[in-house]
Amino acid sequence: MADNAPPATKPEETTPATTAEATAPTVEATAESTSAEAEGKVPSKNELKRLAKQAEKDKKAAEKAAKQAELKAAQAAADVDFAAQNYGVLPLNQSQERTGRERIQFANLTDADIGKTVLFRARVQTSRPQSKMVFLHLRQRFHSIQALVLQQAELVSKQMVKWAGTIVDESIVLVEGVCQTPVEPIKSTTVSNIEILVRKIHIIATVDGRLPFSFDDASRPEELYEKEDAQFNKVLLDTRLNNRVFDLRTPTNQAIFTIQAAVTRLFREYLEAQGFIDIHSPKLQGAATESGASVFKVSYFKGEAFLAQSPQLAKQMAIAADFERVYEIGPVFRAENSFTHRHMTEFTGLDLEMVIEEHYHEVVDVLDNMLLNIFKGLQTQYANEVETVSKQFPCEPFKFLDKTLRLGWKEGLAILKEGGVELPEFEDLSTENEKLLGRLVREKYGTDYYILDKFPAAVRPFYTMPDATDPQYSNSYDFFMRGEEILSGAQRVHDPAFLTKRMQECGVDPASMKGYLDAFKVGAPPHGGGGIGLERVVMLYLKLGNIRRASMFPRDPRRLEP
Amino acid sequence: MADNAPPATKPEETTPATTAEATAPTVEATAESTSAEAEGKVPSKNELKRLAKQAEKDKKAAEKAAKQAELKAAQAAADVDFAAQNYGVLPLNQSQERTGRERIQFANLTDADIGKTVLFRARVQTSRPQSKMVFLHLRQRFHSIQALVLQQAELVSKQMVKWAGTIVDESIVLVEGVCQTPVEPIKSTTVSNIEILVRKIHIIATVDGRLPFSFDDASRPEELYEKEDAQFNKVLLDTRLNNRVFDLRTPTNQAIFTIQAAVTRLFREYLEAQGFIDIHSPKLQGAATESGASVFKVSYFKGEAFLAQSPQLAKQMAIAADFERVYEIGPVFRAENSFTHRHMTEFTGLDLEMVIEEHYHEVVDVLDNMLLNIFKGLQTQYANEVETVSKQFPCEPFKFLDKTLRLGWKEGLAILKEGGVELPEFEDLSTENEKLLGRLVREKYGTDYYILDKFPAAVRPFYTMPDATDPQYSNSYDFFMRGEEILSGAQRVHDPAFLTKRMQECGVDPASMKGYLDAFKVGAPPHGGGGIGLERVVMLYLKLGNIRRASMFPRDPRRLEP
Repeated sequence: MADNAPPATKPEETTPATTAEATAPTVEATAESTSAEAEGKVPSKNELKRLAKQAEKDKKAAEKAAKQAELKAAQAAADVDFAAQNYGVLPLNQSQERTGRERIQFANLTDADIGKTVLFRARVQTSRPQSKMVFLHLRQRFHSIQALVLQQAELVSKQMVKWAGTIVDESIVLVEGVCQTPVEPIKSTTVSNIEILVRKIHIIATVDGRLPFSFDDASRPEELYEKEDAQFNKVLLDTRLNNRVFDLRTPTNQAIFTIQAAVTRLFREYLEAQGFIDIHSPKLQGAATESGASVFKVSYFKGEAFLAQSPQLAKQMAIAADFERVYEIGPVFRAENSFTHRHMTEFTGLDLEMVIEEHYHEVVDVLDNMLLNIFKGLQTQYANEVETVSKQFPCEPFKFLDKTLRLGWKEGLAILKEGGVELPEFEDLSTENEKLLGRLVREKYGTDYYILDKFPAAVRPFYTMPDATDPQYSNSYDFFMRGEEILSGAQRVHDPAFLTKRMQECGVDPASMKGYLDAFKVGAPPHGGGGIGLERVVMLYLKLGNIRRASMFPRDPRRLEP
Repeated sequence: MADNAPPATKPEETTPATTAEATAPTVEATAESTSAEAEGKVPSKNELKRLAKQAEKDKKAAEKAAKQAELKAAQAAADVDFAAQNYGVLPLNQSQERTGRERIQFANLTDADIGKTVLFRARVQTSRPQSKMVFLHLRQRFHSIQALVLQQAELVSKQMVKWAGTIVDESIVLVEGVCQTPVEPIKSTTVSNIEILVRKIHIIATVDGRLPFSFDDASRPEELYEKEDAQFNKVLLDTRLNNRVFDLRTPTNQAIFTIQAAVTRLFREYLEAQGFIDIHSPKLQGAATESGASVFKVSYFKGEAFLAQSPQLAKQMAIAADFERVYEIGPVFRAENSFTHRHMTEFTGLDLEMVIEEHYHEVVDVLDNMLLNIFKGLQTQYANEVETVSKQFPCEPFKFLDKTLRLGWKEGLAILKEGGVELPEFEDLSTENEKLLGRLVREKYGTDYYILDKFPAAVRPFYTMPDATDPQYSNSYDFFMRGEEILSGAQRVHDPAFLTKRMQECGVDPASMKGYLDAFKVGAPPHGGGGIGLERVVMLYLKLGNIRRASMFPRDPRRLEP
């Protein structure tokens, strides 16, 4: 903070006064020594001569000192900062006043604003002094603008320019300035047709200590690091995550989380228009149940509880409770000690469940149309954000068809076989083979998005409904983006006797899931649904390469902070 | 399920065939005994006479038996059920076919549908046989209709009527029928101007075992139990919660959770229109921090983690990360061993945080307008659901003013003093005094909703910004509905040095909150926000009396199921 201390306490301004005080004693001392001589006996001629000479000398010195003092005082008067009110550090905002004066957003500026005086809050990304001016690169989320602090009579003082050059990167400032057309379009900021001529600039908040890495390093396109002669500091993912708040300020991250919020909004809007309601199921569970995925144990008063691995049971129970069509957006916990690019111990589940009137493809249709609504929404409403991310993480735009490709399990295996990989009929696909199938499908059909239907019953959970004619298959499906699974779903078993039988066949003790089974004993309609990993959709749509980049504060077996 | 077995295996239908088989051997046995006599010596006259008499008798008996068999066969032919295809139990739905035939919702029926044949799925709430017909009370969520199964030549057989009378309550049926005008408007169903004349009825799913309590008992207005001569079974809240799936089917519960979903939708819509984005902060935390509220401990691989008591820290960090305006809807965990009507160990938090430009009243304005948007939305778009709930939980409609009443802390205390309760200036309000203040405010200002601003600093957390002029007060507020707090919020301390000082003053070790403090060291703007308990808003708007009624699957220290 010392660099940005307010003008009132700056050493430069106190200098003239100090100089004046320092010279005054010299004059007084000379006068004293003269009077001391006068108190002694009558001096000799030579002595008189010498004294006269000395007096003359002292007089001249005194005159010179006085003149110097006068000059310095005049200089000091000239230096009084006429712009002192126009810059400095604001007192800590404790809501002292409310003027209601409008503050603008860079994103909304147009040529019509040229010549207007505007007020805004922004981050100082860099402050670059150059001869008699300072260039400021100012940022508002993923928008940026250039501002000039330029000495100007009666408006911007030399001191103000000097001070502006000392503003620490990432400080937050309040700026008043005039919009003007730059000499040539500015390439380094998102606003290229307007620059701000600063009239007033005050610091709202600043940085305490050093920044963990440079903003430029954090924002640089990934591909640049791969060049052999790369001279840049690569900011490792772990370093970023350790300093996540600062890392999140890059335009890329601002765009990623705007897109993440867009995905949830588009998800909700589509489903609500289709009659779904938002539910909130408990994450604290009495028993560790459901699937093979490991579960976190919680100390619960004198007993224990477990964190829900998904809202699967609760959302099915909501269907048995007649809510017809439900969705939930919430945290999902997986105690898997895994460090892949696509696993976290906590992620955001987008889940839905609905009554089936006749056929589980009703569910597949809803899921498919919902995802298409997301993809189209991102394409049309978030093109800028997607482009911002692609500058740092370049990738081919996400391709999808008007009518989504739906492959049966057998067709999927046939495509893999054509591609040279022959697999057993009833085993699950490995991550590698999923990716290979994704590549083959892309080559053959030109899509990054498709549905694989009718998985073998053996690779799905006990609550999955078997196929009506061949019980080796099931009414279940996965959806893929860029060769990775983003959604898994199925028609569920709604008959309690059959469900009990399936549990027993799959080694699940029906007694351990009494509350769930009871829901079907009071009569449940045929139903199905699916669960989507929000961060996976974001990671794969933008091809971020690691799911942690799509999570604001990611959690894995080694990371619980920040 | 036995009561509803399909007609093909019903004992009644096999009876004729069995009778025919049983009579045939009698005839044959008679013939055999006659031929045995013929093989013996020549009989006497008397014997001949006796034998002739016997033969005559046998012949008559045989003729009679034959005639009876013939009659029975004719009768059986007449009994062949011409309507067998029109009723029964459907095979387990495994998505055998997809006709795409439209199924209607009761809620959409109008007089224009009279005379039309419609297809729909519904719950059988009751099935009441009456002479030659059966009255069905059919339900779709909070809508219901009356259906008649009435014997009709070539359409509805006697057997079909009989079978319809045996359908178990809460079975799910697929019905085809004709809309007709009832003799007089039906009072017991929500659709009063139309009844369904059933043509086909099939069971999709049924009930296994007894229902835990009767639907009527579960739906009865609470006030009826208070009458001295009440003869009803009161279903206790604990019984309901133990059998929550069935309990949730009452029109009241269907309406409560429709309203709950409406609150979240109105919350989101308002905030998104104001530039807020949806974030998802981790519930797994590395340290047990923040406030005095107890925290749940989780086994986390070889170490431990804690469940977030609120997204407070994360949402503030999102502000320091430049997201400007964020909201989150998610679970909040409180390890408080408390059994009041308004505490749960897990509830749904509606949280928001935003940058303050000048004054924290900017936040109060957003929160206030957001809540008004919810109240107005419920009033205009969910009047039916609110009315449905009020039938079981009667209450005065929720009152709020066009311009919300905002009281300062001192004004609040003054009103309490007028009401006879004088309180110390800097102590928090007890639940009792909050309620009293709510009553006094309602009397004086005619509102169930108001804001209390400028709480004493001593009763708020360390991160609360003190008032600019009097540090004994703070820039913090609570919002109240019907005298109970539903929202708590404040301007936060954004300066890291001051935040550290406040932590120390409040006995919080700054080292234990390094990640949080670091967020402010890289520069954070002034900001504020608030947190709302979703279930409290629903409970108080509808005056449900217990927060568990506003939670689909509530959790308290003794309840982790279902």
